[in-house]
Amino acid sequence: MAYLSLKEETIQELQNIAHRLRIHAITSTQAAKSGHPTSCSSIAEIMSVLFFYTMRLNLQNPRDPASDRLVLSKGHAAPILYAAWAELGLFPVENLLNLRKYNSDLEGHPTPRLNFIDVATGSLGQGVAVAAGMAYVGKYFDKSNYRIYVVVGDGESTEGSVWESLHFAAHHKLDNLCIIFDVNRLGQSGPTSLGHQMDIYRQRLEGFGCNVYVINGHEVEDLLEAFHEAAYTKKKPTAVIAKTFKGKHFPNIENMDCWHGRPLGNKAESVINHLQDLIVDAKGHEIPIKSLPSIVPVPNVDITNLKLSTPPAYKIGDPIATRLAYGSALEKLVEYNNCVIALDGDTSSSTFSDKLKKAFPDNFIECFTAEQNLVGAAIGAACRDRTIVFASTFAAFFTRAFDQLRMGAISGTNANFVGTHCGVSIGEDGPSQMGLEDIALFRALPGSTVFYPSDAVSCERAVELAANIKGICFIRTSRPNTAVIYDNNESFAVGKAHVLKQSPKDQILLIGACVTLMECLRAAIGLEKIGMHARVLDPFTIKPLDRESILENGYACYGLILVVEDHYQQGGLGEAVLSALADRRGFIVKHLFIPSVPRSGAPKTLLDKFGISARHIFKAAKEIIEIDSTVF
Amino acid sequence: MAYLSLKEETIQELQNIAHRLRIHAITSTQAAKSGHPTSCSSIAEIMSVLFFYTMRLNLQNPRDPASDRLVLSKGHAAPILYAAWAELGLFPVENLLNLRKYNSDLEGHPTPRLNFIDVATGSLGQGVAVAAGMAYVGKYFDKSNYRIYVVVGDGESTEGSVWESLHFAAHHKLDNLCIIFDVNRLGQSGPTSLGHQMDIYRQRLEGFGCNVYVINGHEVEDLLEAFHEAAYTKKKPTAVIAKTFKGKHFPNIENMDCWHGRPLGNKAESVINHLQDLIVDAKGHEIPIKSLPSIVPVPNVDITNLKLSTPPAYKIGDPIATRLAYGSALEKLVEYNNCVIALDGDTSSSTFSDKLKKAFPDNFIECFTAEQNLVGAAIGAACRDRTIVFASTFAAFFTRAFDQLRMGAISGTNANFVGTHCGVSIGEDGPSQMGLEDIALFRALPGSTVFYPSDAVSCERAVELAANIKGICFIRTSRPNTAVIYDNNESFAVGKAHVLKQSPKDQILLIGACVTLMECLRAAIGLEKIGMHARVLDPFTIKPLDRESILENGYACYGLILVVEDHYQQGGLGEAVLSALADRRGFIVKHLFIPSVPRSGAPKTLLDKFGISARHIFKAAKEIIEIDSTVF
Repeated sequence: MAYLSLKEETIQELQNIAHRLRIHAITSTQAAKSGHPTSCSSIAEIMSVLFFYTMRLNLQNPRDPASDRLVLSKGHAAPILYAAWAELGLFPVENLLNLRKYNSDLEGHPTPRLNFIDVATGSLGQGVAVAAGMAYVGKYFDKSNYRIYVVVGDGESTEGSVWESLHFAAHHKLDNLCIIFDVNRLGQSGPTSLGHQMDIYRQRLEGFGCNVYVINGHEVEDLLEAFHEAAYTKKKPTAVIAKTFKGKHFPNIENMDCWHGRPLGNKAESVINHLQDLIVDAKGHEIPIKSLPSIVPVPNVDITNLKLSTPPAYKIGDPIATRLAYGSALEKLVEYNNCVIALDGDTSSSTFSDKLKKAFPDNFIECFTAEQNLVGAAIGAACRDRTIVFASTFAAFFTRAFDQLRMGAISGTNANFVGTHCGVSIGEDGPSQMGLEDIALFRALPGSTVFYPSDAVSCERAVELAANIKGICFIRTSRPNTAVIYDNNESFAVGKAHVLKQSPKDQILLIGACVTLMECLRAAIGLEKIGMHARVLDPFTIKPLDRESILENGYACYGLILVVEDHYQQGGLGEAVLSALADRRGFIVKHLFIPSVPRSGAPKTLLDKFGISARHIFKAAKEIIEIDSTVF
Repeated sequence: MAYLSLKEETIQELQNIAHRLRIHAITSTQAAKSGHPTSCSSIAEIMSVLFFYTMRLNLQNPRDPASDRLVLSKGHAAPILYAAWAELGLFPVENLLNLRKYNSDLEGHPTPRLNFIDVATGSLGQGVAVAAGMAYVGKYFDKSNYRIYVVVGDGESTEGSVWESLHFAAHHKLDNLCIIFDVNRLGQSGPTSLGHQMDIYRQRLEGFGCNVYVINGHEVEDLLEAFHEAAYTKKKPTAVIAKTFKGKHFPNIENMDCWHGRPLGNKAESVINHLQDLIVDAKGHEIPIKSLPSIVPVPNVDITNLKLSTPPAYKIGDPIATRLAYGSALEKLVEYNNCVIALDGDTSSSTFSDKLKKAFPDNFIECFTAEQNLVGAAIGAACRDRTIVFASTFAAFFTRAFDQLRMGAISGTNANFVGTHCGVSIGEDGPSQMGLEDIALFRALPGSTVFYPSDAVSCERAVELAANIKGICFIRTSRPNTAVIYDNNESFAVGKAHVLKQSPKDQILLIGACVTLMECLRAAIGLEKIGMHARVLDPFTIKPLDRESILENGYACYGLILVVEDHYQQGGLGEAVLSALADRRGFIVKHLFIPSVPRSGAPKTLLDKFGISARHIFKAAKEIIEIDSTVF
């Protein structure tokens, strides 16, 4: 459907609104004494057109799943986003003056404390991934026609993550996605690398598979037309490349360096006066009803009370890798409830998410080798409770997306992450492929839950629990086959450890997980042969850790604890145990971990050479027991 | 200079070598029973031409600074890289059969344990950044004509980091850089997203500012010509987009799915026979002397014994942000030795690396908003001891480059990293900008040193020490001004804490750094007023931590310790202290940290609301002292 020009007075009204938004951006950052008014001004017309004409929003329920979404990737322009919602009537415009104050949710950068924000932004270059995840869900799961808009700064367009997401969006033909590039020529510390070379942006974005419009971002009608045409473009995401000026319409500030992240100070008044003069024939004209068709209702989705379709069915002693059990559990979850989806970054044949890919191809999203987008898209897909998401790759490669995970935690995302190939037990591939800091990473995310299942039964249950827990869950799985140790009927709970071996004579508590738990059990048998007694504990979740059980069993073993993990020293299971015991005197904790950069070799060789095999556990336990009994 | 065809027999010889390399890749992965022979085969001609004709190498010193460099970004093709060096004569070809064995340095993916490897690869998409860093140094610091080649897989070209680095390379006109894309159409779990659509690769790479050749990657002469022309192209990096086939010349395997990362097993023998048949008129022809001009000698650089040109010159009590002291120290280092360079990601006006940028613009490299490339380029710039590198951005944004830092640690890089704006003390900008997991990140890197200077004097010394320490150093700096507490003559050493307040009556040891150290000092004064006595310790380095001093002072305070940090609980200063005390009974450690996602607000408000202000320290210390004296 071709774009028909709107009446001149409508266009003037949208222009007037843009100026009003500019004024709010100035007054709110003046009140806060910090913030980014010039970065707001360059997108004033973009925001005006999106919010007051193009987007189909529901003021009664800003996170209505059947409405358009906007992600402000350049989160530092938050004041104008807040101003737009206030001008729409969601909350009083006076509240804008509480920007950045402790008691206001109008934070320096947007967070979902606000009911009209889906995800936190402010770490640049992440919005496109989230928007692409939303768009994928809209197109392929909700099968609705709601549209996703994302506003990206030109400074942030140098983030590689942006290009990962554009590639993803084009590959999956996300024609419901519209990416607006605010090319205002100025970054934080100086001019951007590309300035106003619009042709280069065009060439890059066309190369990455977008339907491209290069427009004047301060021309209301250019924007109206581009957004209209975008909505009728099929099989391609649209990139609107808007040539703008930082501080547009701020006399003596517009397009000048050194005005990033600064309120206008004593220039504010004159700029506001100037903007007020630009508002012509205000409150004159109603904006007509939007031209796009109304939104197709979205299906009802119930993402609660997820269960495995059938319980684990293994035989004790059978060698099954926990990563394989992850794949099986995924498949069972989808059998039970079709809202479960999996994403992977070209590692599905290793993570075993390909079990779901084969059984339910529609529930699988291939993200190729691009972990930042993998995580960002997962966060986007989980928004507004449309799906339960599991995203998997090698544990090591989640380090690639730590910033996205960090922002995911700030966003309170419900996405789940599964990292396989942890530790030296992967063997010959060598250190680049070994996850040895993944527990540290995921423990450090506020509100996260970290599972480290020790066998196939507990891994299936971990997946089931993760599907039901709010917030980020991480499940650490291993490459090698390890023996099934739990009965299929064993019950598992978050923060609940399992004691696998105990006697009243125990002298030391051994704590390990998966491969190192197996080594602990072997060491315990060895110790028994020389008349020493070790208790063995499987924590199941590293965060929260079962502090009560560790205290109780630790005290029962005279306060002697040995923690063994296939991870570096810092931030892993060992330090989690130490944190749990920090306020108690009387414990000695010996920690065996990977002490240096590992290397290639057979898994068993590496466990031994890097000091976490049964032999080392045996030796360390014996030493501690002997020394301790000498001292006391 | 135009490319002149080589003699037919030379071309045949290079083709023969390619087949010999293929055979080595098969036999070595057969011996290892794992590895990626098909991924090797697609680059056999590329490697043959580079190693046996194009590159100017020094077999006597493979890391000769005056020689060309190759980075194998697709590190899983390591066997053919090893084979090339072996065939060149660096080590016996028989050694190739030790691939992936514990006692061999021929690991599954390349690491600098080998004297011909500059950086570890294997986590995909990182090679271009490193190569770009090397190229920048070659062009602008060494001012030599050595060239940098980097081989990138098509699967990994979806990593955004690749595009960050291409942007960087084009912006800085790195015409000494040649990026070879091995477009073999197949990824790990299936076909790549772009397959053999060479035009799309061309459009993208031209859009990103490269001089582009699309060639048949199995045609020796195509490669010879492209590398020749690349060497004579000015002001642009060259991208050679090579159309190849995975498992090329492996009958019934070539171009077939499901052969990623698998040795050929029982097909190996027949494939080897086939390849041997393809070797025509072998050992017949000498390869002529290379056509490129010889390498311009590189300047002598001494990167040892770096000093500040002048000592710190502050007045005790003056309010100076540690980030500002970082900028000052950088400038002083360059004044002393011009080998020091700084990189920043469009945050130089906030990190104060702009002090160096203004004083010594030639020693500053702008990396724009692209932290993965920032870190990768820093690692590249530090290679072969050409420069001492400091790379800075907000502490929070290093999470974006955790994978690059992880690989940097495996590479034993000597690059230094400075993260500003740590913790809630940044205030109004809100959680997206707060580094609250950066200590956890940098502690978890093997061999790292983590500085957390508490004032301007100690920060300048931290920068000086970091410049001299091998391995990754991280310096955590703060945004707000904090009082200078050390005399300008105070001496600082790695792993050496400073006790700032003590008396024989001390009942508790308070440990903090920078903003929280100031709060500890305030709390100690408060405690004194109610007759309680606290000792205050500044650790200076978090890794290594001054265990002796903490033990000694902790015992002197009856084993009561209170650690306060502007960081999340996990992996930070608190858990570092707990690890240091793990093997001792008798300590109680109370830990105050940021317990949840923070929000915008005034710095002082946030310190208090999130529980790390003097008031909270006072209260916690009082409580512990009282409870403990009741118990004992």
